[in-house]
Amino acid sequence: MPERIVLYTAKICPYAQRAEIALLEAKAPNVQYQIDLQNKPEWYAPKVNPASKVPAIAYGGPDVPPDQPSPESVKLAESLILVEFIADLFPESGILPTDPVLRAKTRFFIDGVSTKFVPAWHAYSQGKSSAEEFYKAVEYLQSLLPTEGYAIGPYSAADIAISPFLGRARVTLLNDFGGYPAGEGPKVLEALSSGSGRFARFGKYLSDVLARDSFKATFDEAYITERYTARFANLRK
Amino acid sequence: MPERIVLYTAKICPYAQRAEIALLEAKAPNVQYQIDLQNKPEWYAPKVNPASKVPAIAYGGPDVPPDQPSPESVKLAESLILVEFIADLFPESGILPTDPVLRAKTRFFIDGVSTKFVPAWHAYSQGKSSAEEFYKAVEYLQSLLPTEGYAIGPYSAADIAISPFLGRARVTLLNDFGGYPAGEGPKVLEALSSGSGRFARFGKYLSDVLARDSFKATFDEAYITERYTARFANLRK
Ligand SMILES: N[C@@H](CCC(=O)N[C@@H](CS)C(=O)NCC(=O)O)C(=O)O
Ligand SMILES: N[C@@H](CCC(=O)N[C@@H](CS)C(=O)NCC(=O)O)C(=O)O
Repeated sequence: MPERIVLYTAKICPYAQRAEIALLEAKAPNVQYQIDLQNKPEWYAPKVNPASKVPAIAYGGPDVPPDQPSPESVKLAESLILVEFIADLFPESGILPTDPVLRAKTRFFIDGVSTKFVPAWHAYSQGKSSAEEFYKAVEYLQSLLPTEGYAIGPYSAADIAISPFLGRARVTLLNDFGGYPAGEGPKVLEALSSGSGRFARFGKYLSDVLARDSFKATFDEAYITERYTARFANLRK
Repeated sequence: MPERIVLYTAKICPYAQRAEIALLEAKAPNVQYQIDLQNKPEWYAPKVNPASKVPAIAYGGPDVPPDQPSPESVKLAESLILVEFIADLFPESGILPTDPVLRAKTRFFIDGVSTKFVPAWHAYSQGKSSAEEFYKAVEYLQSLLPTEGYAIGPYSAADIAISPFLGRARVTLLNDFGGYPAGEGPKVLEALSSGSGRFARFGKYLSDVLARDSFKATFDEAYITERYTARFANLRK
């Protein structure tokens, strides 16, 4: 029986959303505590995560309030490690398949998310590279997708790794937030999500992952839109 | 029963050595094929690894010669994914412990190797940062080590991830190869390996991982020294 799970999280953070989705997919009983990233509690770094980032998990130990973490719980960090941890605790969740080849494919897709997709998205949205550079990263992931279903067929850690970034990219492009040329955002979103043309397969995948219940339950679009409005206000001038 | 494993590898490559060590630790029957990275066979990228890097594994499929890879085998790449793949195929190898917390700790150490140690080592050895910057990364990993044993206690994927880099760093420093000030290499090696002072615990760890049979059997010091002599010849001027 898994022990007590306390997740330290923040609604704004795509990495933290990965852990929230994994916990929902695993139907794992857990307690969540929101960290205000603009004003972190002074106990957070010394008592929970020395890197002072969300997400983090306190696992096991006595039943203390989350803002008084016990030294007896194990503290774990790094979103992808937390997703695999939850998969290991709840193997029946299917977050990671049991077949070693499918597990490797899941991790290979995640590696593409971390080393290609996320950096390309950040560069593009900050106005530091062209739409075409971003499209190349999307095309790479698209080349890994099977003809049907999620990243490796059944829903898995691969989809959990990318969907918080896809959700935030959608909000960003839809509202034309970012450092790319004004007016370009909605066009890029249309190209990626139309379900035809160059990104036909990716468009279907995008709508599938964003429609997943565990994604929707952990994504507050109104909140993210409001925060991004402030964050991106001065980027394009 | 695991299927046929063909490993595409290169003696010079630290990433490839990870896969070689994992196969030895797992006592996994396998066939190895050396890729000459200076002169890669034209079939390698299209038929084995589109990224054109070692290591890669061809798994399963018919019993063909490694230089005539069959489309029927599954092709897998990325050293850390291959190590986890081998761990998944051979759980009794102990490459990954069974306890979810220890698995998370293994992956957290590996994350430190990938995001802190390896970049700091490359920057230092190329003469792009100071010894002190490199020492900070070493100190970080040292802070994760238990008082005794390997990175998480028993030998694991964490040690497999770092040891090829430690072996190559040792050769580099010992021979004063690299872009840092002439004469500094042997002093840094002495500081790291003396087993006393600032890096006391790390020094013990270093000697433990480099003494592991699976490391020694996959590390050709004379060959690496010779190749590095050529590679670093013009770096310091
Ligand atoms: N590599 C980490 C990244 C986590 C991260 O960067 N979290 C951000 C928020 S999205 C954070 O907590 N930053 C610290 C801060 O804002 O002070 C992971 O995957 O968990
Ligand atoms: N991230 C990859 C890196 C592998 C890698 O960079 N391998 C190098 C040799 S050490 C390679 O094959 N480079 C391609 C080349 O030299 O053409 C892994 O972990 O497997």
